[in-house]
Amino acid sequence: MSSRRGVVILGAGNVASALAPALDAAGYSIRQVFSRDIQNAVTLAETLGSAEPIDRLDAVVGDAEFYIVSLTDKAIADIAGQLKGTGGLWMHTSGGIPANELAPASGDYGVLYPLQTFSKGRPVDFADVPVFIEANTPGNLEKIREIAEKISKIVSEADSNKRLRLHAAAVFACNFVNYLWSNADAILAEGGESLEVLYPLIKETLAKAIAISPYAAQTGPARRGDSAVTERHVTVMTPRQATLYRLLAQEIADTYLKDIPL
Amino acid sequence: MSSRRGVVILGAGNVASALAPALDAAGYSIRQVFSRDIQNAVTLAETLGSAEPIDRLDAVVGDAEFYIVSLTDKAIADIAGQLKGTGGLWMHTSGGIPANELAPASGDYGVLYPLQTFSKGRPVDFADVPVFIEANTPGNLEKIREIAEKISKIVSEADSNKRLRLHAAAVFACNFVNYLWSNADAILAEGGESLEVLYPLIKETLAKAIAISPYAAQTGPARRGDSAVTERHVTVMTPRQATLYRLLAQEIADTYLKDIPL
Repeated sequence: MSSRRGVVILGAGNVASALAPALDAAGYSIRQVFSRDIQNAVTLAETLGSAEPIDRLDAVVGDAEFYIVSLTDKAIADIAGQLKGTGGLWMHTSGGIPANELAPASGDYGVLYPLQTFSKGRPVDFADVPVFIEANTPGNLEKIREIAEKISKIVSEADSNKRLRLHAAAVFACNFVNYLWSNADAILAEGGESLEVLYPLIKETLAKAIAISPYAAQTGPARRGDSAVTERHVTVMTPRQATLYRLLAQEIADTYLKDIPL
Repeated sequence: MSSRRGVVILGAGNVASALAPALDAAGYSIRQVFSRDIQNAVTLAETLGSAEPIDRLDAVVGDAEFYIVSLTDKAIADIAGQLKGTGGLWMHTSGGIPANELAPASGDYGVLYPLQTFSKGRPVDFADVPVFIEANTPGNLEKIREIAEKISKIVSEADSNKRLRLHAAAVFACNFVNYLWSNADAILAEGGESLEVLYPLIKETLAKAIAISPYAAQTGPARRGDSAVTERHVTVMTPRQATLYRLLAQEIADTYLKDIPL
């Protein structure tokens, strides 16, 4: 164990591209960045001192202290199988995958899950990102906690089930919400407007949801049971938007007017 | 015309309860507040100097200068018909209703539409609320503009079609988004967590959407085509949430992976 050193980053996507620089800045030595697309590996490695970009798994060093897997969920078990018995402390960064999918790669494994949305080219201050950790032993948990606390001020434990719940809620609160904003943007663009006109509304919607809870903050024609306006609204939408609109309006009406639990 | 004076507010709901105090603060004399529920009329009137709370339409004074209708969309035409020929300058505050639904009440009418979400008990600084105006004559438009500019810094013209589009987009960006936050909150509550843990994520989601557009900012398993995580996520949801989740995940996949236009 004592001869192991440094960190291998497996992945060069949105999460890896935010996490690796944070680790680098915290003093960890990133030895390699792996991506199936060498250009992605090169781009990320260039931001990380002397990290080596690689695109073949047989080039992964066998003596790193930490292996961090930031790949799509379905690639995690696959890569742990292909790098069977490598050893070192392995962790993945996924919200939805149990820790033990890494077990083939090493007897020491866990999770370091940053609950944030990352996009390449958009810097995020990792210190403010909530990080949820899990490991297969108390000793490994402390090692992962040490890493997490060097990059974030907000570190908590979460087992696989709690993490799955956090991730599922995040998909509603982030991915799906963002998709609705895209639709609002498209509806406005079709009339020569921009989403900017809605920024005061969007900001107040968020502030109010935080202040009094989103359930209490719900307003709008669907909550009031105003179906006439629904019929007018769909006239300015594409068929896809109209279908989505009707469905969400019905969901809100079911919740607030028929008292059907969420 | 010169003997007409003051303002009658028809409605005592969320919009009226934000708009009437802003008009009062701008120096307008609110003479009456009408609501079918007298208690609502009383509660709002109490915040407005000497306004009289009323719950019968035959008590509405006939010599006000301005009549502002902040009722549900379906009540607007009804009340204009019941107060036929009252005269004065009438305006409603609805995003989805044409101005001319007020025509029975007066030959002078228009719209003063505040594009914001209002909830009673939550103060909003009206100065920062975008207000869209429309009227049946240039002279009436200038009168409505004068009122709007006394209460808001952001006043623009919008005809009924543009207003309908703004309102439809606002339903996506505000009402529907808020409903998704409610669902996230419920998913977390079921596991003993609170929505608070997602605030950094929610704030960054909004900041990123503003910075690079929501379309470009889209991330998450649905965009990546990761259907395995969808199947795990639904295990921590109620059947209603699971149905909504699958539908929105499919919409995102259709948009980003099949390139189907919004």
